[in-house]
Amino acid sequence: MSPAPTAAVLLIGNELLSGKVQDANLVVLARDLRALGVRLTRVVMVEDVREVIRDEVRALASTHDWLVTSGGVGPTHDDVTLAAVADAFGVGLERREEIASLLRGFYGARCTEGHLCMADLPVGTELLSEADGPEGEVVEVGGKKLPWPAFLVRNVFCLPGIPQVFQMKLGAIRARLRRLGASAFVSRGVLTDMDEGNLKPLLDAVVAQHPEVEIGSYPAWIGAPYRTKLTFDGRDAARVDAALEAFVATLPAGEPKGRV
Amino acid sequence: MSPAPTAAVLLIGNELLSGKVQDANLVVLARDLRALGVRLTRVVMVEDVREVIRDEVRALASTHDWLVTSGGVGPTHDDVTLAAVADAFGVGLERREEIASLLRGFYGARCTEGHLCMADLPVGTELLSEADGPEGEVVEVGGKKLPWPAFLVRNVFCLPGIPQVFQMKLGAIRARLRRLGASAFVSRGVLTDMDEGNLKPLLDAVVAQHPEVEIGSYPAWIGAPYRTKLTFDGRDAARVDAALEAFVATLPAGEPKGRV
Repeated sequence: MSPAPTAAVLLIGNELLSGKVQDANLVVLARDLRALGVRLTRVVMVEDVREVIRDEVRALASTHDWLVTSGGVGPTHDDVTLAAVADAFGVGLERREEIASLLRGFYGARCTEGHLCMADLPVGTELLSEADGPEGEVVEVGGKKLPWPAFLVRNVFCLPGIPQVFQMKLGAIRARLRRLGASAFVSRGVLTDMDEGNLKPLLDAVVAQHPEVEIGSYPAWIGAPYRTKLTFDGRDAARVDAALEAFVATLPAGEPKGRV
Repeated sequence: MSPAPTAAVLLIGNELLSGKVQDANLVVLARDLRALGVRLTRVVMVEDVREVIRDEVRALASTHDWLVTSGGVGPTHDDVTLAAVADAFGVGLERREEIASLLRGFYGARCTEGHLCMADLPVGTELLSEADGPEGEVVEVGGKKLPWPAFLVRNVFCLPGIPQVFQMKLGAIRARLRRLGASAFVSRGVLTDMDEGNLKPLLDAVVAQHPEVEIGSYPAWIGAPYRTKLTFDGRDAARVDAALEAFVATLPAGEPKGRV
């Protein structure tokens, strides 16, 4: 099995770093990537500073197969993501008539340059519309329905930060990444009443014998119906199962308490 | 007013990147830092890989006044944070009798080397106990109460990932950072029914006139009682208020709809 494609995520916004807002996009995207067989290896969160975002996009896009950015795509002074992505790739912004036309249709007579600047995209941006799959986004606001594309700049998906819109645009990412045909990650787990100190030698043994399986140990907090959860992950289900069963065979009588 | 001290956060754990668990620690820490007058400028999330954590600790600790790590401090194979922090500073691990003694007291006759390895800390680790302030942590599990110190390695606070324990240990961080005497950030905001496209020229004007105030624009999703929230942040309350009032004076009649 070939190695999993990799992804990074860049979360952008002063409101995240000041604690005003808790990010809600990462966990949803992370689960989608996992199901698509894409390995998310790095997440970075930065402020709304064009040069900082530029440098981060350049670093992450060049070291991962895919990068997803969240936030900073609106029209105001603190929305600098698209300009920064353009900077990262050494291209300019250009007004895209397809988007300008959508904006004029949506805002009608109220449409101003303040709205139209949202149609300024890095040169070479691919517009991912519902044609990419059955999950394409249709925005419905005030009774108006509009198919609204997601933006792909080389290997960088640029998504808005508002969770409801972010999640709608995930459909376009799923459609595009599904084309890779990567095997999804599978995850198995068991629950035990043993603590990590006692589990350690058993885990060390199974980790040594099954290096291709990702094994995790997660203690629960007081009140949980188990003490420690052990997880076994990989893209080859047979190997994951083999590691899990090898581990279970080393547990004392009465363990595990359950499987997840 | 001197510039705010800066901080970075390193969130560690495969379970975060696979989407099995949603981080709950960052937003709590971010709010605390803000209240302490410390500017959080960067957050990074990485897998449980010792070399990756080492490199990230080295980079973040050398470019920020403070670094807080979350996760990877237990005894199992996937707990590599303390070893990685030691690597980052070119020191070894040493068994600390103060911690070993706590572990023996807690686990009693059941205490094994698998438990005691949690007492292996980077050489030079400072133990922050309740003596650091009134909010020091006391762990109570199964009827036993133990004062359990937080770990500070040079400028790196190493906290566990379990949210309940993470939050208990925040008391020690607050006590230490309060000594800096930094002015807290203040935040004001107004709610409007205007959209960002129409707000853009008004915001551009106030941003240009008040560069020392951090101004944010956050559109609400359908169903919210306002369309856009504008925030004004800084450590000098008078300047923040001046920027806010200058902006409000440019709004049309009937705006803003509210203040937050």
